[in-house]
Amino acid sequence: MEGEEAKGNCLAWAARDPSGILSPYQFDRRVVGTNDVALKIKYCGVCYADVVWTRNLHNDSMYPVVPGHEITGVVTEVGSNVTQFKVGDHVGVGTYVNSCRDCEMCNDFLEIHCKKNVYTFNGIDYDGTVTKGGYSSNIVVHDRYCFKIPDEYPLEFAAPLLCAGITVYKPMMHHKMNQPGKSLGVVGLGGLGHMAVKFGKAFGLNVTVFSTSESKRDEAINILGAEKFVVSSDTQQMQEMEGKLDFIVDTAAGNHPFDPYLNTLKVHGIMVLVAFPGEIKFSPRSLNVGARTFAGSITGGTKDTKSMLEYCAAQKIYPKIELIKIDYINEALERMIKRDVKYRFVIDIENSFK
Amino acid sequence: MEGEEAKGNCLAWAARDPSGILSPYQFDRRVVGTNDVALKIKYCGVCYADVVWTRNLHNDSMYPVVPGHEITGVVTEVGSNVTQFKVGDHVGVGTYVNSCRDCEMCNDFLEIHCKKNVYTFNGIDYDGTVTKGGYSSNIVVHDRYCFKIPDEYPLEFAAPLLCAGITVYKPMMHHKMNQPGKSLGVVGLGGLGHMAVKFGKAFGLNVTVFSTSESKRDEAINILGAEKFVVSSDTQQMQEMEGKLDFIVDTAAGNHPFDPYLNTLKVHGIMVLVAFPGEIKFSPRSLNVGARTFAGSITGGTKDTKSMLEYCAAQKIYPKIELIKIDYINEALERMIKRDVKYRFVIDIENSFK
Repeated sequence: MEGEEAKGNCLAWAARDPSGILSPYQFDRRVVGTNDVALKIKYCGVCYADVVWTRNLHNDSMYPVVPGHEITGVVTEVGSNVTQFKVGDHVGVGTYVNSCRDCEMCNDFLEIHCKKNVYTFNGIDYDGTVTKGGYSSNIVVHDRYCFKIPDEYPLEFAAPLLCAGITVYKPMMHHKMNQPGKSLGVVGLGGLGHMAVKFGKAFGLNVTVFSTSESKRDEAINILGAEKFVVSSDTQQMQEMEGKLDFIVDTAAGNHPFDPYLNTLKVHGIMVLVAFPGEIKFSPRSLNVGARTFAGSITGGTKDTKSMLEYCAAQKIYPKIELIKIDYINEALERMIKRDVKYRFVIDIENSFK
Repeated sequence: MEGEEAKGNCLAWAARDPSGILSPYQFDRRVVGTNDVALKIKYCGVCYADVVWTRNLHNDSMYPVVPGHEITGVVTEVGSNVTQFKVGDHVGVGTYVNSCRDCEMCNDFLEIHCKKNVYTFNGIDYDGTVTKGGYSSNIVVHDRYCFKIPDEYPLEFAAPLLCAGITVYKPMMHHKMNQPGKSLGVVGLGGLGHMAVKFGKAFGLNVTVFSTSESKRDEAINILGAEKFVVSSDTQQMQEMEGKLDFIVDTAAGNHPFDPYLNTLKVHGIMVLVAFPGEIKFSPRSLNVGARTFAGSITGGTKDTKSMLEYCAAQKIYPKIELIKIDYINEALERMIKRDVKYRFVIDIENSFK
């Protein structure tokens, strides 16, 4: 830790430039306001967004960047107006920490779609400061953007729910995929994809996993409990799936063809994309002839996030994680880029900043 | 009419080769079977499909091609098992005349999606014959594919409902666009587009017409009653529409960009494509960030077609048509290709074959 930076009430790791290499950093969190909740962070999930902004891939990074938006911890202080949380509560913070609270989107608890929504890190907050995320010892947030984690739900598993979990749960619920007996295809088996399989199983769906890699068959079937595994590069296997699925959740971030997946949908079937490949391209026949639907989604608002957390606790749905210390983060990000993780890294923050 | 062909119980016009030029033709319709309805055709709408198959644009035309799948007329005979129709009834026939009547799609009255569905013309029927459409004096169809036209509804206006009408009505209903007070964009103002505007108005929607041609503004606003008109090639006008619409019905068959239209949708907005441009291409951002939906559709099944006919009669929704005689058809098809028709040609069959 460099001498000049070694002050402030928050210990963190930050990237200082587009190399994206993270190293220790120290800064001040704001004083707890009347509507704020302060929490000691225990765990933070590692999301691909952390790579995007530490490496300035969208050309809008404001260094130093302290990433992390899958945060869980324990309440240490609450503002005078806060009634729904008390010291000692298990809580989480997801991908956003502010919004206008006055627009149609906010009124519908779809805060992620508020035009004045502030992301948890590398966002400009209403006080003009650049937000800093969960690769840090503590955080202060307005109570609206803080979520109660059910007591019996382990905080390390709760962390990935705040981005990966809600990102697949929200569109699955919005498009009514929770219909037992229907069929679901999941494209890509990473942090988001493995959660889609878990939700699919909990909803009573018949799940098919599509992957470019035959090596994932065993995990998909025997560990995650999918009914079927299809190697997506195998044209014959794909053709055999034509017209078979009610729903698809596509979590594949790399460029990939869409026609073969759309064609696996039944008439009136629905495919939801939750990733950001370079471009979407397909034939109108793949969509029109089966009267199919292709929808997009980003993560969910506070209402859906609360429902999702309760659902995961009730159904005992736990992400599969690999727990690391913060000093492993640079290697972990490299491994995540290579998809070498089953299925989400989670940083043990408390034991990293002892 | 050539000597050798001048026999048979049905007078028609057919294309004989990929020139697509239509000329008189005579053939036999089948004997009325126990479940059949025979009708004297009074009117037949002219659809772009008529160009596709008379000119062999899909390389699957079986000449002679007698086109026409927007058929209305009067029942002249019914088979012994037919109970829902009687001689003298006003009826219509749409884009298909047979299906397996035994699959999931048929059981749900989505016969257009039955894998053994038979198109009204240039299809191979279950008896092995090539189907011949409504550019003809009479037709015999199984009663399941025959629709009662409400008595007070003029048959010339009913004709375009059987393809253009149902093609926009079905996805609008499927995607719940019939919510008064919501907003609808209609892309393209032809046979399908003008029906989308009419349904939108009847549903109580606030309608915006998008067109490449400023010349359609007056018709869109003053004749069809749209609230707003936007020239789609005008970037500024398009940007002003960003995030404004709940729904879009896209009827434009030519290649066009999709991002600008998707961006006019609100969060959770729905765009339905009912045409067949060459390729669909857009950025995942246009879909995901607003959690938007892009859906496709072809025409509807028998249940939706019946609902649509009843709705049009109850709401007094009439397509705008240009009535022609069959000997004008070659010019009419040329004019339709140039989009020089407001908005649907309908052939006065009865007075053409006197």
